[in-house]
Amino acid sequence: MRRLVLLRHGQSEWNKENRFTGWTDVDLSIDGVSEAAQAGRILKKNNYTFDAAYTSVLKRAIRTLQIVLYEMDLLWIPVYKSWRLNERHYGALQGLNKDETRTKYGDDQVKLWRRSVEVRPPALEKTDKRYPGNEKKYASLKTEELPLTENLEDTEKRVLEDWNNLISKDINSGKNIIIAAHGNTLRALVKYLDDIPSDGIANLNIPTGTPLVYELSDDLKPIDRYYLGMEGKIADDKFPKHV
Amino acid sequence: MRRLVLLRHGQSEWNKENRFTGWTDVDLSIDGVSEAAQAGRILKKNNYTFDAAYTSVLKRAIRTLQIVLYEMDLLWIPVYKSWRLNERHYGALQGLNKDETRTKYGDDQVKLWRRSVEVRPPALEKTDKRYPGNEKKYASLKTEELPLTENLEDTEKRVLEDWNNLISKDINSGKNIIIAAHGNTLRALVKYLDDIPSDGIANLNIPTGTPLVYELSDDLKPIDRYYLGMEGKIADDKFPKHV
Repeated sequence: MRRLVLLRHGQSEWNKENRFTGWTDVDLSIDGVSEAAQAGRILKKNNYTFDAAYTSVLKRAIRTLQIVLYEMDLLWIPVYKSWRLNERHYGALQGLNKDETRTKYGDDQVKLWRRSVEVRPPALEKTDKRYPGNEKKYASLKTEELPLTENLEDTEKRVLEDWNNLISKDINSGKNIIIAAHGNTLRALVKYLDDIPSDGIANLNIPTGTPLVYELSDDLKPIDRYYLGMEGKIADDKFPKHV
Repeated sequence: MRRLVLLRHGQSEWNKENRFTGWTDVDLSIDGVSEAAQAGRILKKNNYTFDAAYTSVLKRAIRTLQIVLYEMDLLWIPVYKSWRLNERHYGALQGLNKDETRTKYGDDQVKLWRRSVEVRPPALEKTDKRYPGNEKKYASLKTEELPLTENLEDTEKRVLEDWNNLISKDINSGKNIIIAAHGNTLRALVKYLDDIPSDGIANLNIPTGTPLVYELSDDLKPIDRYYLGMEGKIADDKFPKHV
């Protein structure tokens, strides 16, 4: 049996301000730092250890991982940072307040943009200052790899490139792996691992700073999955029934 | 012209307690955290940027680098952590108080152990709990790679493996590199780059948390070297005269 730990970053400044974030590189809030430290302490208390770690190129995920590894005395392990593990790109919604967007476009439209697997938010123009091609950290990407907006399937596709080429190989070689990433990156991975249909994933919300453990068979099929050490915080029945 | 930045970690808990540290994995002190943050702000203010970073597998160097990259908004760059960039192994002296050791063995002997290029401190026994072979982070090393004690030449030899195989290649490919490491790791590298003889390196002490910039020619020969933005802290004449 192999174990994989998924961890959504702690609360960010824009989670707190209720704004669409996506690829915007906002920092953790003070509460987010505390959440990350607590996650690290819970993992350590439960005798988890890791041989390598994966994260995005966004600081809220990287810092969450750094804080977790510091708490676990594992700062020395290799950390692979990949744009493919970035949050879903939210297109032209990035930076907008969620409540204001609901007032302008209606609850149903915003819910579709947030939770639908197929619907994409309005796309960025390449002339928009928020276009990822303007950032040095994406300089190595091909133009067609730079998103203007994404639905969950788009996100899943790039996450699975890292899963298939890197992460699953590490797990298969016996390494204990943690992935510190984002709400939709992890939803996309959970959707794939548990083969969850589109109408099942819409209501799955992975909480911040809460280690989600997958026990996997030798062919990397899920045997069990549970949130670690947070019985009071996450009711088991929050996980999709069909899983 | 290529630029390389060397950075010794900020003050550690054992720098403060005046103990021989070597491969002991002690944390930064609060002052060490501040030094690292200041180094990051100075690099940013002077418009430095980095494409990749190298550090050891010891947390005082890793955390120094993380704090610097956070201040520079560069947390996303690749970081390569290598045991070959660890501090010189101080053998059986690790953990001992420096003043007590002087009282016991005499000033001259301690100075030889600390600053001689050839003399090694007393070796660890493999049964010693401080033996690096007991630590998971060194599990991938061959027995003959695990030091029981080191002189500066031993340290230089392993540092140059990383220099020749990895770091110099990155610099040659046009990457801006920072190495966040340790007093003796960096002395060994400076000794190599500037071709400093044994009697010249003995009195070269690289200060903590102070970016040391090397300007290098295309064949990686030093054109100039200086401490960055710390004119009041480091007198230029502290650098060996013959350099």
